[in-house]
Amino acid sequence: MSTELEIAGPADFHVHLRQGTLSELVTPHVRQGGFTLAYVMPNLTPPVTTTAQALEYRDRLKRIDPRVHYVMTLYLSPDLTPHEIHKAKRAGIVGVKSYPRGVTTNSESGIESYTTYYPVFAAMEEEDMVLNLHGEIPSDASTNTCVLNAERQFLKHLEALHRDFPKLRIVLEHATTKEAVETVKSLGDTVACTITAHHLALTVDDWAGQSFNFCKPVAKYPDDRRALQDVVREGSDSAPHLIEKKAVASPDQPCAAGVYTSPILLPLVAHLLESFGALDNLEGFVSTNGRNFYKITEPELPSDGQRSYSLPVVKLCKTPSSIAKSLDLNEQKVVPFWAGKQLNWSLLPV
Amino acid sequence: MSTELEIAGPADFHVHLRQGTLSELVTPHVRQGGFTLAYVMPNLTPPVTTTAQALEYRDRLKRIDPRVHYVMTLYLSPDLTPHEIHKAKRAGIVGVKSYPRGVTTNSESGIESYTTYYPVFAAMEEEDMVLNLHGEIPSDASTNTCVLNAERQFLKHLEALHRDFPKLRIVLEHATTKEAVETVKSLGDTVACTITAHHLALTVDDWAGQSFNFCKPVAKYPDDRRALQDVVREGSDSAPHLIEKKAVASPDQPCAAGVYTSPILLPLVAHLLESFGALDNLEGFVSTNGRNFYKITEPELPSDGQRSYSLPVVKLCKTPSSIAKSLDLNEQKVVPFWAGKQLNWSLLPV
Repeated sequence: MSTELEIAGPADFHVHLRQGTLSELVTPHVRQGGFTLAYVMPNLTPPVTTTAQALEYRDRLKRIDPRVHYVMTLYLSPDLTPHEIHKAKRAGIVGVKSYPRGVTTNSESGIESYTTYYPVFAAMEEEDMVLNLHGEIPSDASTNTCVLNAERQFLKHLEALHRDFPKLRIVLEHATTKEAVETVKSLGDTVACTITAHHLALTVDDWAGQSFNFCKPVAKYPDDRRALQDVVREGSDSAPHLIEKKAVASPDQPCAAGVYTSPILLPLVAHLLESFGALDNLEGFVSTNGRNFYKITEPELPSDGQRSYSLPVVKLCKTPSSIAKSLDLNEQKVVPFWAGKQLNWSLLPV
Repeated sequence: MSTELEIAGPADFHVHLRQGTLSELVTPHVRQGGFTLAYVMPNLTPPVTTTAQALEYRDRLKRIDPRVHYVMTLYLSPDLTPHEIHKAKRAGIVGVKSYPRGVTTNSESGIESYTTYYPVFAAMEEEDMVLNLHGEIPSDASTNTCVLNAERQFLKHLEALHRDFPKLRIVLEHATTKEAVETVKSLGDTVACTITAHHLALTVDDWAGQSFNFCKPVAKYPDDRRALQDVVREGSDSAPHLIEKKAVASPDQPCAAGVYTSPILLPLVAHLLESFGALDNLEGFVSTNGRNFYKITEPELPSDGQRSYSLPVVKLCKTPSSIAKSLDLNEQKVVPFWAGKQLNWSLLPV
C-alpha cells in the first residue's frame, strides 16, 4: 500500500458556494478540502437564471479564491428559453439544474411536468449541455410518498427524460438507493449520477435522532449504501462516477448545517474508499470520470501567462488527520461531518 | 357531534415512571394527562426483577401520586425463575417486559434466544400473566437490518412465541408498521399490540431532521400510519387496542427527550382520533379494550374506606387547549410533542 497518493485535478461536481459573506467563508473550503474544480449550483436568492448572472457570479467567486476552476450552471425555471441556452453555451456555461419545486401548475405525479421544458431540453441536447436533476418527488401521504421512497419514485421521470432525449447528458444528483444506481447503469453513457461522500458512510440509523447526519436525500438502508460503495469499487465510468458534497445546509432544511464535508473532502473520500477496498479508484471517482462525462477541456490555472492544459496535482499522504469538532461559519458554529473523528489520510501542502 | 365526552378509567398500558427526582416529576403527569391507571415499565437502574422490588416501587409511586392505579411488571432477564413468576402472580403483578438487549450468549437472528426463557413463559402461561415485547431486533448491516425494518424482522419471533405458547397473552409494544398490525390480527385473541399517540400522527418525514419527533421504534411510511389509524377506527378488540406513550427519553436514545406526550395525553388522543374519524372508539382505545385484555379487575381508587369497583370518570370538552412550548423536567427543559400547537379538546377539572 502506497503511503502517498497524487490526484490530478480533483473536481467536485456539485458545490453550493452561496452568496454574500457566507460565500466568502465557504468558497475557500473547496481548495482547502483538496479540490481544484467546482461545478457550481445556481440556487441563490434570486436563483441564477441568465448567462449574465452566471458570469457575474463566477467573477465574484474568482475574486474570493482564484485558485479554483469554477464551472457554471443555470437554474431551470419557466423563464429559461432555448435562446438563453444557446447564449449560455457560447459563454462557457455547462449545465442546467432542476429542482422539484412544483413552481408550475403543470404537475404530474407530484413533480412539475418536464414537458414544459422540452424546448429547453432540445436546445440543451443540440448544444451538448448537461441537465442536473435533484431526483426526488415531493412527499404525499395519499401516494405513500415520503423521504424514504421519494428518489425511487422519481426514477420513472428520469427514464422518460432519457427516452425522449437520448443524447442529452443527464446527471441524477446525489443518488442514495440501489434502485437509482441500477437505473442509471441501465440508461447508458449519457446518464450518470453523483454520489456524496457521506452517503458512502451513512445509513438511516445514523441520522435517526442525529440531526448532524441528516440531509436530503436521506441516507437509506445498509444495502443501498453497499450498492453505492460497489459502484465506486467497480470503477465503472459509464455508470455513477462523480462526487458532491453539501456545502452548507440549504434554507429548506429543517435543521441547521446538516452534513458539511467541504474543508475535509478529499482526505475523507480517500479514507472512505480505502475502508471498502476502492482506493485504487480514487482518482477516477474524484476527477477523471467526472471530467470525462462533463467533457471538461478548459485550461486549468494558467501559469506564467501561458494557457496550460495540465491539471494541478494534489497530494495525499497516509498520516492521520483529525476533523475539527466545530467550524466557525459566519457568526454561527457548524459541526462538520464526523466531527472529532480521525481520518487515515491528510492533504500535503502544495 | 357532542361537545363533552366522559371516559371511564383511562388506562395507559405502557408508562415509564422512572426513579428518583425524575419520577417525582413525571409520575403526576399520568393523572394530569387524564389517565387513572398506569401499566408501569420495569426498566429502572437496576431493573425491577423481583416481586419485592416491584412492590416497593409501587409504594414509592403511590406516595408520589395516590390517585393512580399502578399495575406492575417485572423485567425479563436470565435471573427470572418460574418460582418468581408464581410469587409475582400472588402479589398482583400482571406482566413481564422483554427488551432485545442481547444480554445472553444464546443469540439467533440478532435477538437473544427466547428458548432460554421457555420455563418462565410456561409459568406465565399457567398463571395467565402477560408478556410485553419490545419488538425490534438490533441493527446489523450484514442482514440489511436498520431502524426501518427492525420491527418487521422481529415478527417471526412473535409468531414463534405464539405458536409455542398459544395461551400466553402477548403484547407487541408500540407497533409502527402495517405488517405488525396484520400479524397481530392474524394471531387471535391472546396477542395484542399497543399503539402510541404519536405514531398515529407521525411518519418518517416528521423525524427526518427533527429530533423532537424521533423515538424508537421510529415512525414509518404514510401507509403504516394509515394502517394504525384504520385499526383504531375499526374499534376491533381482538386486534391492536392499547395506548402507550414515551414518558421521557430513555438513556439509550441519542437525542434528549424525544416524544413526550404524558401531560397532554388524553386531549391529544381525542384530537387525533377525531382527525381520522375514530372518536367514537376513544373509550375503547384508551380504556375498555386494554382493561379487557389485561383482565383488570382490581379496585380503582377505594373511597370512603370502601373497596369500590366503579371506575373514575374523566371528562373532556371540545374547547381548544394549547400545548406548552416547553416543560421543566428536573433541571432540564423538555419540549413536549406538538409544542405550541393547539388541540381541539381539553380536560375538564375533576
